Amino acid sequence: MTLSLNQRTTRRWTVAEAVDGCVRHGLEAIGLWRENVAEQGLAESVKLVREAGLRVSSLCRGGFMTAGGLPGDEGRRAFVRALDDNRRAIDEAAELRAACLVMVVGGLPGVTPGEPLPTGTANAGGVAAGGFSRDLAGARERVAEALAELAPYAGERGVKLALEPLHPVYCPDRAVLSTLGQALDLSLAYPEEQVGVVVDTFHVWWDPRLFEDIARAGRRIASYQVCDYLHPLPADVLLGRGMMGDGVIGFPPITKAVLAAGYTGDVEVEIFNADIWAADPDEVVATMKARYEDVVPATG
Amino acid sequence: MTLSLNQRTTRRWTVAEAVDGCVRHGLEAIGLWRENVAEQGLAESVKLVREAGLRVSSLCRGGFMTAGGLPGDEGRRAFVRALDDNRRAIDEAAELRAACLVMVVGGLPGVTPGEPLPTGTANAGGVAAGGFSRDLAGARERVAEALAELAPYAGERGVKLALEPLHPVYCPDRAVLSTLGQALDLSLAYPEEQVGVVVDTFHVWWDPRLFEDIARAGRRIASYQVCDYLHPLPADVLLGRGMMGDGVIGFPPITKAVLAAGYTGDVEVEIFNADIWAADPDEVVATMKARYEDVVPATG
Repeated sequence: MTLSLNQRTTRRWTVAEAVDGCVRHGLEAIGLWRENVAEQGLAESVKLVREAGLRVSSLCRGGFMTAGGLPGDEGRRAFVRALDDNRRAIDEAAELRAACLVMVVGGLPGVTPGEPLPTGTANAGGVAAGGFSRDLAGARERVAEALAELAPYAGERGVKLALEPLHPVYCPDRAVLSTLGQALDLSLAYPEEQVGVVVDTFHVWWDPRLFEDIARAGRRIASYQVCDYLHPLPADVLLGRGMMGDGVIGFPPITKAVLAAGYTGDVEVEIFNADIWAADPDEVVATMKARYEDVVPATG
Repeated sequence: MTLSLNQRTTRRWTVAEAVDGCVRHGLEAIGLWRENVAEQGLAESVKLVREAGLRVSSLCRGGFMTAGGLPGDEGRRAFVRALDDNRRAIDEAAELRAACLVMVVGGLPGVTPGEPLPTGTANAGGVAAGGFSRDLAGARERVAEALAELAPYAGERGVKLALEPLHPVYCPDRAVLSTLGQALDLSLAYPEEQVGVVVDTFHVWWDPRLFEDIARAGRRIASYQVCDYLHPLPADVLLGRGMMGDGVIGFPPITKAVLAAGYTGDVEVEIFNADIWAADPDEVVATMKARYEDVVPATG
């Protein structure tokens, strides 16, 4: 397993700067974000990674396809928009020859990521007056429906969709896929080269079925991402991802299980963290490399 | 199903005041906390609930039995202390004729609930220099070992231990039991009258296996607790429990599943919430009753 820099870890770097940084620090792979690729330009981004000889370990991210659970025209329009955007993401991943397109599937319909709930009522079922839905089972069905549209499209372009289960704390607003087992079950209807799963230590470390589901996933594991889980989480829980060794996760057994499952891809470090974003990106990459060696190996 | 006031919802009330409040609002059951019972006196608390004709739907709480995962003498002493305290909790539950003793099993050894991590090192396995352990699997084994000691003791006294899975956000510091399925699996080694499980909507609403595991639990469900899951969580995640209808949970399908599983006990409302604690307890109980009727029923 070789280390890959997910560019969100060095957030202030453009694609060009992150590519340079990877080369400077001897890394062979990079995980890119669509926003950054758009700023750099898709063709230019492709050229940069090719000329640097880097693998693109993932493109982040497609998904957010649950808004179709809103009622009527609003829901139908949102579903069509989400499919369109995901097809563009697949096209970009194909151009970049990304090992996978990471899919963050979306939360409850009508709940905006990182925002408070729309002012609702005490209506427990269906759609609240404030315009969001508490129908979690329905939101999960919308994900399955969207995947049925997108998986063949991805397959035709040689792109693997990587379903990412997120920690349950993100279930309201970011991902109704909450466990590896759930993501895996959803993937099984499709060929292995079309739909896989992400194992991100931050999201799954607590799961009592983790080792069983990693083994069951086998070569469905499309991406292994590592970062630590800080405790307590900061007020903005999105920023609770820490450098490996700074939190509560014991990495060796997880790494060992991922390797035993047959994973041979790159290992991405993706950290959302205000302190790390404020630091010198070169120092962050140096620390990342050292901690990766110290903390992550199966034999650690 | 009838409504029960978990006294933590009206935090400023003593046992005597909470018993009075239940009677005044026409409730038939109350969930008590050990600290409050100790302040009121155990014998006096027993007398108060008996004379008021209230059922004690639960006593909160035993548990915190993972510290035995610390190395050497420190671990052994912590394990013995935890068993002693749990035996006292069982004795109190027997005196109160509580329907169950709720067990919050504890987090990673050496992590104090609600406190930052001890300053550790980047040591990923075993015990970090700062004095806490990242061995989650080991902590879960300690829970099983403690349960093997306590279940027969509880059985002899007619007390049912109710294993409570907590939301994964509490895995570091409060409970390494993170899903209903995990709690249920742990309970199955013991007779139904000795060890059951808690279904608390706040903790389990996100779980993709929830309905399957509620059905599997059947009459192992020792307590059904309802409150809402606020989004975003407040900075102190312990206080993210909201009045039913104020958060993201759709209650009817969960209530329906719990009833279908054969649950016939009381339904406790247990809310940790700074605003609710600051409000007039009588108003809180009135709101609780109204919301319970509006939002929680299976047919809602």
